[in-house]
Amino acid sequence: MTDELSDLIGELVDTTADEQDQVIRQIVATREPEEVALLLESLPLAVRLDAWSKVPADDKLDILLTMRGDPRESLLDNMTLQELDALFDGMAAEDLVELSESLPRRMVDRALWVMDEQQRHYFEGAKQYRDDQIGRWVSHELLVLPTNARVRDGMRLLRRELPDYVDTVFLVNRAGHFSEAVRIGKIIASPDHLPLVDLSEDVFTVLEGQEDSVDASVKVQQSGFSALPVVDDTGKLLGRIDVGTAGELVNTYYEGQLMAGAGMDENEDLFAPVVKSARSRALWLGINLLTAFMASWFIGLFEATLQQVVALAVLMPVVASMGGIAGSQTLTLIIRGLAMGQVTSANLKALAKKELSVGGLNGVLWAIVIGLVASVWFGSPVIGVVIALAILVNIVAAAFSGIAVPVLLDKFKLDPALSGSVVLTTVTDIVGFVAFLGLGTLLLV
Amino acid sequence: MTDELSDLIGELVDTTADEQDQVIRQIVATREPEEVALLLESLPLAVRLDAWSKVPADDKLDILLTMRGDPRESLLDNMTLQELDALFDGMAAEDLVELSESLPRRMVDRALWVMDEQQRHYFEGAKQYRDDQIGRWVSHELLVLPTNARVRDGMRLLRRELPDYVDTVFLVNRAGHFSEAVRIGKIIASPDHLPLVDLSEDVFTVLEGQEDSVDASVKVQQSGFSALPVVDDTGKLLGRIDVGTAGELVNTYYEGQLMAGAGMDENEDLFAPVVKSARSRALWLGINLLTAFMASWFIGLFEATLQQVVALAVLMPVVASMGGIAGSQTLTLIIRGLAMGQVTSANLKALAKKELSVGGLNGVLWAIVIGLVASVWFGSPVIGVVIALAILVNIVAAAFSGIAVPVLLDKFKLDPALSGSVVLTTVTDIVGFVAFLGLGTLLLV
Repeated sequence: MTDELSDLIGELVDTTADEQDQVIRQIVATREPEEVALLLESLPLAVRLDAWSKVPADDKLDILLTMRGDPRESLLDNMTLQELDALFDGMAAEDLVELSESLPRRMVDRALWVMDEQQRHYFEGAKQYRDDQIGRWVSHELLVLPTNARVRDGMRLLRRELPDYVDTVFLVNRAGHFSEAVRIGKIIASPDHLPLVDLSEDVFTVLEGQEDSVDASVKVQQSGFSALPVVDDTGKLLGRIDVGTAGELVNTYYEGQLMAGAGMDENEDLFAPVVKSARSRALWLGINLLTAFMASWFIGLFEATLQQVVALAVLMPVVASMGGIAGSQTLTLIIRGLAMGQVTSANLKALAKKELSVGGLNGVLWAIVIGLVASVWFGSPVIGVVIALAILVNIVAAAFSGIAVPVLLDKFKLDPALSGSVVLTTVTDIVGFVAFLGLGTLLLV
Repeated sequence: MTDELSDLIGELVDTTADEQDQVIRQIVATREPEEVALLLESLPLAVRLDAWSKVPADDKLDILLTMRGDPRESLLDNMTLQELDALFDGMAAEDLVELSESLPRRMVDRALWVMDEQQRHYFEGAKQYRDDQIGRWVSHELLVLPTNARVRDGMRLLRRELPDYVDTVFLVNRAGHFSEAVRIGKIIASPDHLPLVDLSEDVFTVLEGQEDSVDASVKVQQSGFSALPVVDDTGKLLGRIDVGTAGELVNTYYEGQLMAGAGMDENEDLFAPVVKSARSRALWLGINLLTAFMASWFIGLFEATLQQVVALAVLMPVVASMGGIAGSQTLTLIIRGLAMGQVTSANLKALAKKELSVGGLNGVLWAIVIGLVASVWFGSPVIGVVIALAILVNIVAAAFSGIAVPVLLDKFKLDPALSGSVVLTTVTDIVGFVAFLGLGTLLLV
């Protein structure tokens, strides 16, 4: 797919204006909406808007729904009221839930105004939940029957058009509470008069609306079923989450984790307007600057030493950088463990013992190597000893912080994937500089 | 799920030895294999092996199949030949494909020896493909009918037990070549005598065995179907990839990307043996050390300057660190774009222009801020000018490298997620130090 997409981008950029209309129509007709969305995201802003104006109106909604937040906004912002109204016409609740993230409030109201009553009701139900709760993302295309239904009722239902990703029929009691799930395969294979409850699954996961959306999506992926039901806190069936939606939520989560490492989010637009992009990144640079100045301030404490032994200034980055790398290895492992629920108070001590041992071993190894190189380079065994000790201290401290920092951040409900590495490198920088320059002051001055 | 898992870990660690047997059996009986696998991964090695010995033999295979590589190996290595034979008994080809990554060759042969001929044939077919090709991961639980079959044949097939994630029947010609797909829903709703080909899907994606496994998995996730067929280069049907397998492959890919940032891979065991873990991380520390020494060497060129103006030594980390952060923002965006096929020669120039503009804007902003702070701190406007210019140069250079480094690595078939940030920070460190100390030498000495 990636190769094909690259080809399409090339094709679109190289096309003359007259042919473009034709090319875009053909792409939209033969590709999945997800591919067209990725393609549009890959176009510089002006080309993107131009291309968007040539996408047939009927295809626009599906493409917008799968697009990342920021590029989607770039398109929605440039659509006329008339175009938006066409988009809203006959829109399902779950589509508006998705789009409402990128629409101003008054446009959402406009969309609600033309929406049919049932869908508006669904929309308001979904909005009861936060966007990190699974209740927000349910779909309402369900196969539902009352608990006293029989196989023949099931077959009648199945003969109407089946929604995507359906492998069970949900049985619901009179109060609308979810009760059982019956596999379609079993309905097809059973005699007409059998009650469906006799065929229902013994073990079947039911999701609750306020569950974390990623955890719940992973449950769907692991269930082996194409979709799981979602209920509210009274047990009333709200809708379902299918493997398609679950996959999107999990992929978005992972993209978010990857982008968070650089202080960005998963909605970042490849071709965001320059000023907008500069502004959103400036904050992260500013936070980093504060921590860098902090490290500098600690170095400043040792100005006199640095003046006398300039070799220390030359070697400083080695100490800081080895600590940063060792710490980030532990950090990465712990962040993954925390996200999966694998790191908890019960195994934290054992984990710390293991990581400190690993740190100790690598600390000794690299202390020796770096100590030898430094003493040869500067012709001074004492410099070798100073840097060797500093490296050992910093790598062990890095292992400790690699566990402590994410665990504490997580306890304070801060995302370790976002702020973990900034805090960690601040610690390893400061510990490294102070250990190195402090030992240097003691042994060399 | 994450909370529940944490509770289970606590439960298992706090249990006395006599109760453990009972607790484990109960967990295995009521949880998905994926959850049990995550739980076992979260236990220190000795506890893990102890718990594993109490897992009923019949449940072991499913748990092993969903476990990450390294922890799985820790369990397999400690199983007796007898236990392994029980595991191999009646094993499906796709299970052995998965396990064979963690088994020594002679154990794979042993498993093949007891495998039935059809499954052995499938296994050898899968092994024709590399593990980054989708052909390696196909399953063989298919609903297949000849191209001349009718609805009544379809219904007969559906009345047997349906495999998980099946929403279409595949039609195959006499040579075994895939021809069409028919939705189950349409078969159920149509009269008995109708030829199935009349009901087949107009647009249906067929995967080829040698396609990239992640790209192909994304296609499955985007298709809206529960599974897509995979064919070899002659068009012969090899099997299918369902949304379950696709989700696992995509999640593993993302985990790999996240771990690669710290020079590790997705198989890393939370409780790997200390020596093994230290060894695997030492390589990454060694590579980093080389780059750190390189940066030091450049600093060393300016020893005389540093001796005269020690403020430069104090401020060095600020210049390097701002460049590193700005560069990693661009790098992260480009790595994601490359992975999705969104960055290509056709839009590279526009992308570079945008990133350089963003870099220029943030460069000017932070140059002014840092220049002012430094000139006040050290009471020297010239130091302010020196660091301001160095920051501007380094942030712009970082934006440029943030694009050039991953694009070049990708061109040479190296994974930018693994080596991108090491190469990038080497560039930003060196550019930063040379610009800063070079300007310092010119203007301050």
